Amino acid sequence: MQETPTTQDGADDLRNALSADFRRVRAFSERLCEPLVTEDYGLQTVVEASPPKWHLAHVSWFYETFLLRPFLAGYRVFHPRFEYLFNSYYEQTGAGFWPRAERGLLSRPTVAEVYDYRHHVDAAMLRLLAECNASDWPRVAMRLQIGLNHEQQHQELLVTDIKRHFAYNPLRPAYIQDLPQSPIADPVPLGWRAFEGGVVSLGLETSGPHEAFGYDNERPRHRAFLEPFALADRPVTNGEYLEFIGDGGYENPALWLSDGWAEVQARGWRCPLYWEQVDGAWQLMTLSGMRPLNPAEPLCHLSYYEAEAFATWAGKRLPTEAEWEHAAEEADITGNFVDDGWLHPRPAPEGEGLKQLFGDVWEWTGSAYLPYPGYRAPAGALGEYNGKFMSNQMVLRGGSCATSLDHIRPTYRNFFYPVERWQFKGFRLAETLR
Amino acid sequence: MQETPTTQDGADDLRNALSADFRRVRAFSERLCEPLVTEDYGLQTVVEASPPKWHLAHVSWFYETFLLRPFLAGYRVFHPRFEYLFNSYYEQTGAGFWPRAERGLLSRPTVAEVYDYRHHVDAAMLRLLAECNASDWPRVAMRLQIGLNHEQQHQELLVTDIKRHFAYNPLRPAYIQDLPQSPIADPVPLGWRAFEGGVVSLGLETSGPHEAFGYDNERPRHRAFLEPFALADRPVTNGEYLEFIGDGGYENPALWLSDGWAEVQARGWRCPLYWEQVDGAWQLMTLSGMRPLNPAEPLCHLSYYEAEAFATWAGKRLPTEAEWEHAAEEADITGNFVDDGWLHPRPAPEGEGLKQLFGDVWEWTGSAYLPYPGYRAPAGALGEYNGKFMSNQMVLRGGSCATSLDHIRPTYRNFFYPVERWQFKGFRLAETLR
Amino acid sequence: MQETPTTQDGADDLRNALSADFRRVRAFSERLCEPLVTEDYGLQTVVEASPPKWHLAHVSWFYETFLLRPFLAGYRVFHPRFEYLFNSYYEQTGAGFWPRAERGLLSRPTVAEVYDYRHHVDAAMLRLLAECNASDWPRVAMRLQIGLNHEQQHQELLVTDIKRHFAYNPLRPAYIQDLPQSPIADPVPLGWRAFEGGVVSLGLETSGPHEAFGYDNERPRHRAFLEPFALADRPVTNGEYLEFIGDGGYENPALWLSDGWAEVQARGWRCPLYWEQVDGAWQLMTLSGMRPLNPAEPLCHLSYYEAEAFATWAGKRLPTEAEWEHAAEEADITGNFVDDGWLHPRPAPEGEGLKQLFGDVWEWTGSAYLPYPGYRAPAGALGEYNGKFMSNQMVLRGGSCATSLDHIRPTYRNFFYPVERWQFKGFRLAETLR
Amino acid sequence: MQETPTTQDGADDLRNALSADFRRVRAFSERLCEPLVTEDYGLQTVVEASPPKWHLAHVSWFYETFLLRPFLAGYRVFHPRFEYLFNSYYEQTGAGFWPRAERGLLSRPTVAEVYDYRHHVDAAMLRLLAECNASDWPRVAMRLQIGLNHEQQHQELLVTDIKRHFAYNPLRPAYIQDLPQSPIADPVPLGWRAFEGGVVSLGLETSGPHEAFGYDNERPRHRAFLEPFALADRPVTNGEYLEFIGDGGYENPALWLSDGWAEVQARGWRCPLYWEQVDGAWQLMTLSGMRPLNPAEPLCHLSYYEAEAFATWAGKRLPTEAEWEHAAEEADITGNFVDDGWLHPRPAPEGEGLKQLFGDVWEWTGSAYLPYPGYRAPAGALGEYNGKFMSNQMVLRGGSCATSLDHIRPTYRNFFYPVERWQFKGFRLAETLR
Ligand SMILES: [Fe+3]
Ligand SMILES: [Fe+3]
Ligand SMILES: [Fe+3]
Ligand SMILES: [Fe+3]
Repeated sequence: MQETPTTQDGADDLRNALSADFRRVRAFSERLCEPLVTEDYGLQTVVEASPPKWHLAHVSWFYETFLLRPFLAGYRVFHPRFEYLFNSYYEQTGAGFWPRAERGLLSRPTVAEVYDYRHHVDAAMLRLLAECNASDWPRVAMRLQIGLNHEQQHQELLVTDIKRHFAYNPLRPAYIQDLPQSPIADPVPLGWRAFEGGVVSLGLETSGPHEAFGYDNERPRHRAFLEPFALADRPVTNGEYLEFIGDGGYENPALWLSDGWAEVQARGWRCPLYWEQVDGAWQLMTLSGMRPLNPAEPLCHLSYYEAEAFATWAGKRLPTEAEWEHAAEEADITGNFVDDGWLHPRPAPEGEGLKQLFGDVWEWTGSAYLPYPGYRAPAGALGEYNGKFMSNQMVLRGGSCATSLDHIRPTYRNFFYPVERWQFKGFRLAETLR
Repeated sequence: MQETPTTQDGADDLRNALSADFRRVRAFSERLCEPLVTEDYGLQTVVEASPPKWHLAHVSWFYETFLLRPFLAGYRVFHPRFEYLFNSYYEQTGAGFWPRAERGLLSRPTVAEVYDYRHHVDAAMLRLLAECNASDWPRVAMRLQIGLNHEQQHQELLVTDIKRHFAYNPLRPAYIQDLPQSPIADPVPLGWRAFEGGVVSLGLETSGPHEAFGYDNERPRHRAFLEPFALADRPVTNGEYLEFIGDGGYENPALWLSDGWAEVQARGWRCPLYWEQVDGAWQLMTLSGMRPLNPAEPLCHLSYYEAEAFATWAGKRLPTEAEWEHAAEEADITGNFVDDGWLHPRPAPEGEGLKQLFGDVWEWTGSAYLPYPGYRAPAGALGEYNGKFMSNQMVLRGGSCATSLDHIRPTYRNFFYPVERWQFKGFRLAETLR
Repeated sequence: MQETPTTQDGADDLRNALSADFRRVRAFSERLCEPLVTEDYGLQTVVEASPPKWHLAHVSWFYETFLLRPFLAGYRVFHPRFEYLFNSYYEQTGAGFWPRAERGLLSRPTVAEVYDYRHHVDAAMLRLLAECNASDWPRVAMRLQIGLNHEQQHQELLVTDIKRHFAYNPLRPAYIQDLPQSPIADPVPLGWRAFEGGVVSLGLETSGPHEAFGYDNERPRHRAFLEPFALADRPVTNGEYLEFIGDGGYENPALWLSDGWAEVQARGWRCPLYWEQVDGAWQLMTLSGMRPLNPAEPLCHLSYYEAEAFATWAGKRLPTEAEWEHAAEEADITGNFVDDGWLHPRPAPEGEGLKQLFGDVWEWTGSAYLPYPGYRAPAGALGEYNGKFMSNQMVLRGGSCATSLDHIRPTYRNFFYPVERWQFKGFRLAETLR
Repeated sequence: MQETPTTQDGADDLRNALSADFRRVRAFSERLCEPLVTEDYGLQTVVEASPPKWHLAHVSWFYETFLLRPFLAGYRVFHPRFEYLFNSYYEQTGAGFWPRAERGLLSRPTVAEVYDYRHHVDAAMLRLLAECNASDWPRVAMRLQIGLNHEQQHQELLVTDIKRHFAYNPLRPAYIQDLPQSPIADPVPLGWRAFEGGVVSLGLETSGPHEAFGYDNERPRHRAFLEPFALADRPVTNGEYLEFIGDGGYENPALWLSDGWAEVQARGWRCPLYWEQVDGAWQLMTLSGMRPLNPAEPLCHLSYYEAEAFATWAGKRLPTEAEWEHAAEEADITGNFVDDGWLHPRPAPEGEGLKQLFGDVWEWTGSAYLPYPGYRAPAGALGEYNGKFMSNQMVLRGGSCATSLDHIRPTYRNFFYPVERWQFKGFRLAETLR
């Protein structure tokens, strides 16, 4: 979104621009919920997918906690228990939090009350943006950037969680009846792009007044060495994964990481999430209900283990996050985002060059989510945003069809546990050239 | 409710009376839900307490399955998947059932659609009652009696489940703001009534054209021998249980059954369900929100284990169901029922005689829920109603403040697992006289 | 065992007789362990089956705790931690106990040390029996009776637990290589014996100087009413149970209690414990290793749920414990006991009359394990022996091929959870005559 | 151990040397078990710590499976079921494996039979080494190297697992009564050593006839870039960790990774494994029983989470494995190993330079265990040795007081889940210099 200015006019422009961003981002959360009925707002069909109502309230709590309470004189909280009910996991706020697994067990506050809460916070935030003094402003502007990006992350979660909740219902309801649909086709041929490697730079410069927004975990910029490698020019498709399944991929332990094989056995996995065989033909659940599987579309909704097993089967591997970022550094940030309204990955176009680096599906990398050399988590509760999750998770890159276009960048590090499948996640093959 | 007639006029009267019963019972379920907001209908805060929406649909499924499909020519089911979604546990219908633990995970059908389902079933049922031929009528009438009693049982569950769901919410919302409230007082003194025992008869005569409605598990009438015994003239009160707690009842394993003590440890029990210490004083959750504990009120919402431990502490025991029924056989069926609108147990009145046998709180007995000699479960899916639960549960007697007055009788056998506490359950002391 | 005397000579005789009983019972525990190798002594393959080493030590702890510490002046405990390690579940001794599930995780004390412990206790006990003064004697004699019967119960557990541990090993080792074996045959025909019922008496007279030994839970003697009934003249056999299996018994929920069906699903039961299909033929594990299934032998090692489902399938029911005791009151206590050395149930003989009431297999009854009217648990830790288990368990009667002949009597109440299968348990059919 | 030769004499020497290695390694496993009594051999007090008997058999199974069956003509397996019982986790052998969690539930084969199995395998292996033809020899030699290193790894597990089993016993028995003991002292002062970083090389050259033994996961040698960094000159000590505990380290979520904090809560961690407060003073369990905590000794037996939380508290971080290897590349491989017989970490000596890189305690690094660029797992079941564990684990470096001196090297990558504590693991601090 907005860059930080250096002049007074620039400052006013920035305030105005941030206010506009704020209104736009806030409105988009509510627009995403328009297709829901009241009953849908409370669903939590699995511990990691929160109720839409909770997301709407939690992102408001974030502004209340990190901006309104510390910076808006005389701010009155909407409800004294909401700091407990809508904190996600911040230990250092001191208020504790309602158990994550039980977010779906609260009928009160009602949906209407949560919207009231949002509007209460909206009004106070706009007052803060208008009235904030110059000495607070840098911190307010920076926290607002975080707050807006935070809300955008929860917008993506709204989409993925709603999909999870609707797919769980045996009636398989549609979130939106008439989403656009790609024609069924075979995948375009797979090409490869080679990279020389060597010493490369990775991540964002340390944050300062002249720098673009980015999370702490993308910093500091630092060097890494890459052995020569090649990247596939597009993600793996449904069609290719069907071959893996047909070749007994889910029955052959030799292809799997040990932890992955254990999950396959324990969870009875035989296909990606949302795939179903109906009358002998593969279908998959979309935000528009059940649809026939399209071989040309990027493969989506699978675990790291499945991606890794497929790569082993194919004689390749997953790229590291450094390889991916190096390849993406110069690429245009274009693609199929939530802004496009498909809410589903689209087949790769014909043509040369690396395709679909951004949008469509998050791409699993073979890199564990760990701190960059020189990383320091910020002080205080906001330091819990990214830093404390740096164990047991893998990095994903590039955004998806549920991500906002202005939310993504080449340095962006998303992270999930290897077993998780409900995000819009796929992957791209890589290999070492020696 | 209605008795079975022997003449034609009687038959017409019965049809009319059953139609009136049907309308009345159906309307009462909906009246109980009037205080709810849409979000409340979907709550399942614990596996054993179902969402109100599910209860409303399930009782309708019962008529659809056992009356409309077999007896109403040309009946069209409301939705083909509802026989799967709203079957509770009947294995022999062949349709299977949605997992009990996941009833709260379905936002669709919506509340409005469930009400549509009810009205669809209502209309068809009234048509069936009007048009049913004479040869089907006896079975229809009997099944309707079961269906109405079934719906009354779920009305009691609506009340107890709503209480459970609302008590779980940290905001402790009230179901009804202004329920009546008994003045805080000390318990009335406890008296005892002695019985000679000997050979007594127990249970209902085998069902036939001239007999009152009753469940299969109350049959057949049979003999039992009772050693001389005495019963307390009223249930144990909150005030008496406070003494047990004050005397270290929850810390002393010598008072407890082994399985009970294991539950005390595992669940951290230190008081009955819904009791809470707030600023050093005991309060309890009611359907009108939090209230100060009233020592005079019957103790409520506790497990068999707690009842048994209290009795051991008091040097007494729980009555058997045969003792209870023998004592209740001649008693008037009066008391504090759901019809009275208190939705909470009330203090025993002053005076002589056995008090509060009916209403206020279900009374745990020391009898395991087992078949009477000569019991046979009916054939077919309806035979699963009571018979298959005859293991691991204990019998409760007398109904509660959440039971309908015309639903209870001296022979009525309710049953729950000894660990369960969310029903309106208390108990009365007994002793053997030798 | 021994009765209580009334004269001085009688008293001396009793001391001598009890000393002899003590030596005999103690020796038998060790004899049962002779076929074991050191490694076998530590096995706990499932939480409810303890290691042989633990049994040997625990029964010694019992004498130490209830006889030597209170009654033998100057007694020095063998090891200060053994009161913690070898207490089973007595809360009131104050020493706590090592978790039951982890009895198999202790290599020390060694087997040799446990035998040393036994011999230390033996010597002290014989000193106590020789030196005990007249005022302590009645309590000492009573507690010794309990101690000896306690050790006999653990002798039966030694046999059943060893069978469980050996059956778990994929090598299926034999405890004793060459146990005798009944010729394979068809079951003898099933007959029935009718009883008139009426008011009967049940249980033992309250304990006193002139009375036979019996546990507290068999007391007091009291009356019960029995409707007319009939009992099968022998237990159900393997051959009959094969028909149940062949008729889809394990696949038909209509035959099962709800809790039983849940266990069938969760545990994947398709046959009794220790049955296995090997190359298309049924075999079963015995203490002599794997053997072909013998249709004539009493069915053994099954849960209450399986017994109940079979009875439902057969159109019969299980007897109540009152019916069983009434039928057994006059029967001779003869049968196939541990003393006979078969360690396996034997086919019923040809002929008239009730057969195999005693020995061969414990018989599940349809009665929950609950206190008799007027029952009081003894004061102190010994009161935990039986009383605190009076919930959630079912009564079994008659003893088995792993029970000592002089341990059993018609009033004897054994009890297990309905899901448990590792004891030598079968059942006999009954029906109500009306 | 041995290098691969290029001449015939060299070949004979190598055969002889490998035979000697084989005898030496095999004998050492048995020597480690000499202090055990028979009962100890079967212990599995926690799923990840196997019974000593299992280790002794499993390492023999390894030679049988990967050397004797494929290469020794006419080899007769010792027992047909052992390939099932003593396979650890190799899916591709086709024999399956007995569940890991249940290795302690088998009393048979006995300890004596397992020793017989070892000697059977020993004899056959020596025959193979003597008779193997030239064409098989390279593969036999390479697999033997793996087999010997494999047995050495299980020797370390024998030591750590025995410690785990003995520490679990409330009697806290000693494995060896009179192990040497370091005088109680304060830690030597902590120094730092700076490194310039830049492009460095890491790992072993791809295996070939002229190269030293190493595991597949140490290969191929490849380049990495290191930002300037510094390493502490010795591991963190007990004394320093006491300060962390005293400063509320286990109560402050701000110091912990989110997954780590969840483990602290769930497992009630308040100190490292084997620490205990006895009469107000810290003691720790050693292989010689309980001892007072020595502040000067390297901290040992803690999880990655605890190491990471300590580093955060100290304002430092853990080194990456590339940093560690770069620093260790030139260091002498000296230190406190299993060969030294202390079986416990010893205080760092006074003096300059990096100390204790090898031996004493494995050092947690901040690197996830992932494949090096260009890594390929070998084909077949042996490819499962290391490759399939490359997820969710962290790398440790340097060996411990339970490792054999000739087993360790600078490139050696050990790996464990971050929650695991029972190995001899500590850590060394690092920081980025910018
Ligand atoms: Fe958030
Ligand atoms: Fe129902
Ligand atoms: Fe015992
Ligand atoms: Fe191994």
